[in-house]
Amino acid sequence: VTRVLVTGASGFIGRHVLPLLSAAGFSVHAVTGRSSEYPPGVHGHVADLLSSEQQRAILEEVRPSHMLHLAWHVPPGGFWTAMENVAWLRASLQLLENFSSAGGKRWVAAGSCAEYDWTTGGDWKESDALGPSTLYGACKSSVELTAMEMGRTLSVEVAWGRIFYPYGPGEPDGRLIPSVICALLDGRPARCTEGLQVRDFLFVEDLARVLALLVSGTFTGTVNIASGFTARVREVVSEIGRQMHRPDLIELGAIPTRAFEPPRLTANLERLRSLGFQPKFSIEQGLARTIEWWTSDRSTGSPWADHKR
Amino acid sequence: VTRVLVTGASGFIGRHVLPLLSAAGFSVHAVTGRSSEYPPGVHGHVADLLSSEQQRAILEEVRPSHMLHLAWHVPPGGFWTAMENVAWLRASLQLLENFSSAGGKRWVAAGSCAEYDWTTGGDWKESDALGPSTLYGACKSSVELTAMEMGRTLSVEVAWGRIFYPYGPGEPDGRLIPSVICALLDGRPARCTEGLQVRDFLFVEDLARVLALLVSGTFTGTVNIASGFTARVREVVSEIGRQMHRPDLIELGAIPTRAFEPPRLTANLERLRSLGFQPKFSIEQGLARTIEWWTSDRSTGSPWADHKR
Repeated sequence: VTRVLVTGASGFIGRHVLPLLSAAGFSVHAVTGRSSEYPPGVHGHVADLLSSEQQRAILEEVRPSHMLHLAWHVPPGGFWTAMENVAWLRASLQLLENFSSAGGKRWVAAGSCAEYDWTTGGDWKESDALGPSTLYGACKSSVELTAMEMGRTLSVEVAWGRIFYPYGPGEPDGRLIPSVICALLDGRPARCTEGLQVRDFLFVEDLARVLALLVSGTFTGTVNIASGFTARVREVVSEIGRQMHRPDLIELGAIPTRAFEPPRLTANLERLRSLGFQPKFSIEQGLARTIEWWTSDRSTGSPWADHKR
Repeated sequence: VTRVLVTGASGFIGRHVLPLLSAAGFSVHAVTGRSSEYPPGVHGHVADLLSSEQQRAILEEVRPSHMLHLAWHVPPGGFWTAMENVAWLRASLQLLENFSSAGGKRWVAAGSCAEYDWTTGGDWKESDALGPSTLYGACKSSVELTAMEMGRTLSVEVAWGRIFYPYGPGEPDGRLIPSVICALLDGRPARCTEGLQVRDFLFVEDLARVLALLVSGTFTGTVNIASGFTARVREVVSEIGRQMHRPDLIELGAIPTRAFEPPRLTANLERLRSLGFQPKFSIEQGLARTIEWWTSDRSTGSPWADHKR
């Protein structure tokens, strides 16, 4: 049996990938900083991955052939400049080295559209210059640049997905889409920016499918992960108002746009499509599922409960 | 008194910088992995900088306002792909964070022309895209990208010099110029490649002047460090043969050019010149001083003795 170790497994993205990896035939091992509930068949582990000793211990115990590394420091709000990301940069490279020492063969990790130079126009190709303008983006770029070369030295296959704008069930509620949905559920106004910025919106279940594809496959290098469904933020927010029958609560222009928000974060998708991926969820469909998730009974003791208010 | 802590202080480059920093009025503290001799007035310290605890201890002891970070893993030969550079990447970022925590204000560190995309033509500007093709270059790029953003978060001034091809007294003898000089001193043939590749040759005393200027000054960001004296490797090697009166021992084309040797590693120098730097040593003058150093009495107990055979 092929074993995969997933870090950040209880996070927004990680939880959606676990069942897909099980379905793909992997023996799935999940590791997080504190104990968590997982789908049937997933082996849960607790370790502080910022500690090299604990990294080595879990890797020696599991001896995974594959790793999907999603753990990072991403609380809504302050993460763009948080020094914790430097700790995760260091830990990520150490993890790759320890993974190799424990016999690991294929390492897949999550990058970000924040690695690109936001002063240029968007629609980035993977071969475009890196030019992060945030500490978060610099740390992601650093892991990518170094992991790619480490892969050559260590004979580990490295695949890196630059993730654009994921949303969906389980997204922390300080972020845009959950905060709008929650406001409308409460009958409060959703105070938004003008929302003129264009983003590529990727439903998290589609993102999970790409990640499972990358883990199972043989692609090495960097690939953009996005849907091709691009829209202005105001259009998405208005669609939430429409679907929730409270368009009156959407207040566009009520708060200023952050200075470093680039006008356009969109991806060239040639490489992703060449890997055989097509998204299943349009923005309308993805929003409908997300709204449904937030409005469903929150007291069922599901593994998601801790993500809800 | 303003205190500067210099890492890698006993190395090829570090030793040349120490007296210049003393002359500039700094209280100079040198730290290396094992004890070393230093010029008068320089305070020597021993610490393993790969240990965060030892970093913190030395920083608490010295409490430097300035740091010049030169320590790295650069033995001749294997350093391009050595995993030790990943350890130095991690340690360098931790050092900047610990430096800030100990009250540090200005951090200057050594980058490399290996950060540029060697498949493009040379004459690189600082704003050109990074595109390292070696693990060594990826690690340097990663420290640069991340340190620049950390500087903003921590309110530490960060200056980064991308160093091209330094040579001169104290260069480890496995590298090109010392190996040719040593061969000729021994009356052995110097077996070289065709030497068609163009490099910017920077005499180490000029390099030391740039680094002292960066430490003393207020420039933040990235600057190329090179001389503007560009030549084919075969011309430099032939000049050594001429100056040492043994042109007959220079064997061009005797060994193959390494596959990853780019044809041209040269720098745009506008930014460096705008900082007020002009090199003092032509290639002929720099080689003359280097040859003189290798031919002088090696038994004087100078702090350089350990760099000679």
